[in-house]
Amino acid sequence: MGTPRKLLSELLGTALLLAIVIGSGIMGERLAGGNAALALVVNTLSTVGGLYVLIEVFGPVSGAHFNPAVSVAMAYKGLLSRSLLAGYVVAQLAGAVLGAWMAHAMFDAGLLQVSTKVRSGPGQWFAEVVATAGLLLVILRAPAARVAAMVAAYIGSAYFFTASTSFANPAAAFGRMFTESFAGIAPASVPGFVAAQLVGAALGVAVSDLLAGAAVAPGAQDR
Amino acid sequence: MGTPRKLLSELLGTALLLAIVIGSGIMGERLAGGNAALALVVNTLSTVGGLYVLIEVFGPVSGAHFNPAVSVAMAYKGLLSRSLLAGYVVAQLAGAVLGAWMAHAMFDAGLLQVSTKVRSGPGQWFAEVVATAGLLLVILRAPAARVAAMVAAYIGSAYFFTASTSFANPAAAFGRMFTESFAGIAPASVPGFVAAQLVGAALGVAVSDLLAGAAVAPGAQDR
Amino acid sequence: MGTPRKLLSELLGTALLLAIVIGSGIMGERLAGGNAALALVVNTLSTVGGLYVLIEVFGPVSGAHFNPAVSVAMAYKGLLSRSLLAGYVVAQLAGAVLGAWMAHAMFDAGLLQVSTKVRSGPGQWFAEVVATAGLLLVILRAPAARVAAMVAAYIGSAYFFTASTSFANPAAAFGRMFTESFAGIAPASVPGFVAAQLVGAALGVAVSDLLAGAAVAPGAQDR
Amino acid sequence: MGTPRKLLSELLGTALLLAIVIGSGIMGERLAGGNAALALVVNTLSTVGGLYVLIEVFGPVSGAHFNPAVSVAMAYKGLLSRSLLAGYVVAQLAGAVLGAWMAHAMFDAGLLQVSTKVRSGPGQWFAEVVATAGLLLVILRAPAARVAAMVAAYIGSAYFFTASTSFANPAAAFGRMFTESFAGIAPASVPGFVAAQLVGAALGVAVSDLLAGAAVAPGAQDR
Repeated sequence: MGTPRKLLSELLGTALLLAIVIGSGIMGERLAGGNAALALVVNTLSTVGGLYVLIEVFGPVSGAHFNPAVSVAMAYKGLLSRSLLAGYVVAQLAGAVLGAWMAHAMFDAGLLQVSTKVRSGPGQWFAEVVATAGLLLVILRAPAARVAAMVAAYIGSAYFFTASTSFANPAAAFGRMFTESFAGIAPASVPGFVAAQLVGAALGVAVSDLLAGAAVAPGAQDR
Repeated sequence: MGTPRKLLSELLGTALLLAIVIGSGIMGERLAGGNAALALVVNTLSTVGGLYVLIEVFGPVSGAHFNPAVSVAMAYKGLLSRSLLAGYVVAQLAGAVLGAWMAHAMFDAGLLQVSTKVRSGPGQWFAEVVATAGLLLVILRAPAARVAAMVAAYIGSAYFFTASTSFANPAAAFGRMFTESFAGIAPASVPGFVAAQLVGAALGVAVSDLLAGAAVAPGAQDR
Repeated sequence: MGTPRKLLSELLGTALLLAIVIGSGIMGERLAGGNAALALVVNTLSTVGGLYVLIEVFGPVSGAHFNPAVSVAMAYKGLLSRSLLAGYVVAQLAGAVLGAWMAHAMFDAGLLQVSTKVRSGPGQWFAEVVATAGLLLVILRAPAARVAAMVAAYIGSAYFFTASTSFANPAAAFGRMFTESFAGIAPASVPGFVAAQLVGAALGVAVSDLLAGAAVAPGAQDR
Repeated sequence: MGTPRKLLSELLGTALLLAIVIGSGIMGERLAGGNAALALVVNTLSTVGGLYVLIEVFGPVSGAHFNPAVSVAMAYKGLLSRSLLAGYVVAQLAGAVLGAWMAHAMFDAGLLQVSTKVRSGPGQWFAEVVATAGLLLVILRAPAARVAAMVAAYIGSAYFFTASTSFANPAAAFGRMFTESFAGIAPASVPGFVAAQLVGAALGVAVSDLLAGAAVAPGAQDR
């Protein structure tokens, strides 16, 4: 497939992912009457279903990364052409902001917002390391036919078991800066999250290699 | 298969879909003690499971559209004989009203009701555009073996992430006029919803074509 | 497989099904703090997961009916040897009572209980007709490889969208007489439920035949 | 695959499983505002999604037991080399403690904790017998391609329908001693749980053999 189509796919897919994450966060918060567990259940169920579908729909076009940490890891493993990497990342970041605006437009909220929700500290950062390492491990070890279901199930699980509710995605952190809702993150908290995510991605690649054995070349996840 | 069997399939399937949507809305509202998030979780879980099963059961007979916007798009793409289109739409609309009545009969409510729930404004309309565009994109891009699971997962996600709780279906909007319960919509709000859904359906077809590339002919979703 | 093994399979499978339905009902009721929607969510999620697994595990041995209405319909369609029918029904009824006792033993409740929960009236009965008709339609029309997932998804949906929370099974109604918990049904209400279930089963078989077309012989669901 | 890789797989997989179980228990408890049903829903959904993914990811390397009762049963059935059994159990127990610490680190709680939550009595023990028997039955009877989904669905169901919330795993009981949170178990309650789990595992193997028929040799579950 042509490059423009791949970039469009990453842009649209990331936009829809963020619209799902932020939109369902707003819905959960508005309806849950102050019960944060219930709001998170709404946010999680919506993300699981939506992410599964987005990966199935956009995967055949662009691989459905929607995530710069994933694209960097894929380029490192030889599974994404390095000439596409910068374009993928730009498309993902732009898509993320677009998705936040889509969510705001649907919920009649002001388009331009900036989050004030501080997400910081060693626990949050360690949670992002774990969340992103797990995500890369799943992506690299999943059989191709199950990768969409596995990634969606993993992220749904991680929304609940990581203290940070598992951003695990620099583009998500970037886009979620631009919303004052449930899913937001203050700009000052983003660099810590992104650093933790990159560390986690590297760790996930390393663990995947360890499990596969040293002799296994890139592409070995196509078992 | 014969035409009468196809029309029966669309009528019955749409009736059951609306009985599920409205019935679980009543159940959720009655049991949730005023917590709207919990009522919506009940409504959503029931719709996801039911829609998955209905598409698997009725799909081999009639395609399991249950939705005039889908049937119009399918006729446009050459995937539904145009001679069947009017019959499909009539069966869907009739089935939708029948389904509302089934739900009312099960819950000992008066059969004949009209909703007073206003659903209007730019946010709601934009939400229906997004919801229906996404639905068509999923239907047109899903591998045949997964279309039931993907449509169900998508609609479940969209119940939560769109501000309108994702009707995404003119027949659903039509049938839901006839219930005063959780899932209802006032008749005056229906034209706006239907217009938005048709815009969304056209947009979904266009995005699917873009992703597939211009050279891809109708039927290309049978990858 | 030998007949004793088939009967053991129906007895054990039905016992586990009722232990799941009643046990999760008790758990939901005890933990939900009076919120009936939340108790029903717990009851439903547990039933969906458990029913899926039971059908996969016991299906290859006995067909995993766990339900006299299903066994009667299968015998009628020539899909269960008529010489096995009486044995199946007895095993299912005995298993259902055993399952209620298992649930009580796990939750430190008195083994021998009788429900006082009245479930009666036209709405409840119509709900059981719809629930059982749908169940038979799903069983008869599902591809063999998906029947477990489809039945589980259907029952999960029907717990929420039918006013009766979808017993859809005379053995379940029988076993649920023997518990005073959330999932119980007063003995005086059982005959009405069973009659409605048998009507529903007949209706489900008829609709399945209609969709398949008159020329389709028994066994045609093995598409 | 080499032995070290298998042991690493059991250690890492069990650590992640316990991090999921304990982490989502903490998250549920913190957010649910005192509603134990909602906390358990969060705990269960996270475990289902996570367990599914862990079995898919680690299964091809080590079989993804994460559970000494499973490893013992597999060695007895000739499905795990007996020379690996002790190493598997040690890796699982060490992984379980590591997982508890991971959860505490993510939630900024003290690493070293000991539970004071008493879980004892005939109901709890019988629940663990049932939970573990069911788990072994599922593992031994599941087709290989569905074992991950079936085990995850079963455990999710059993969290709700067993009075003990289904530990069903001596390593889980061991690791959950080391947390004062929702998922904890007091050390004095662990021996009773482990004894019940081993009885349940033996019972599950026996029922699986009964269903398979006496003539069926080890390996027969590879249907």
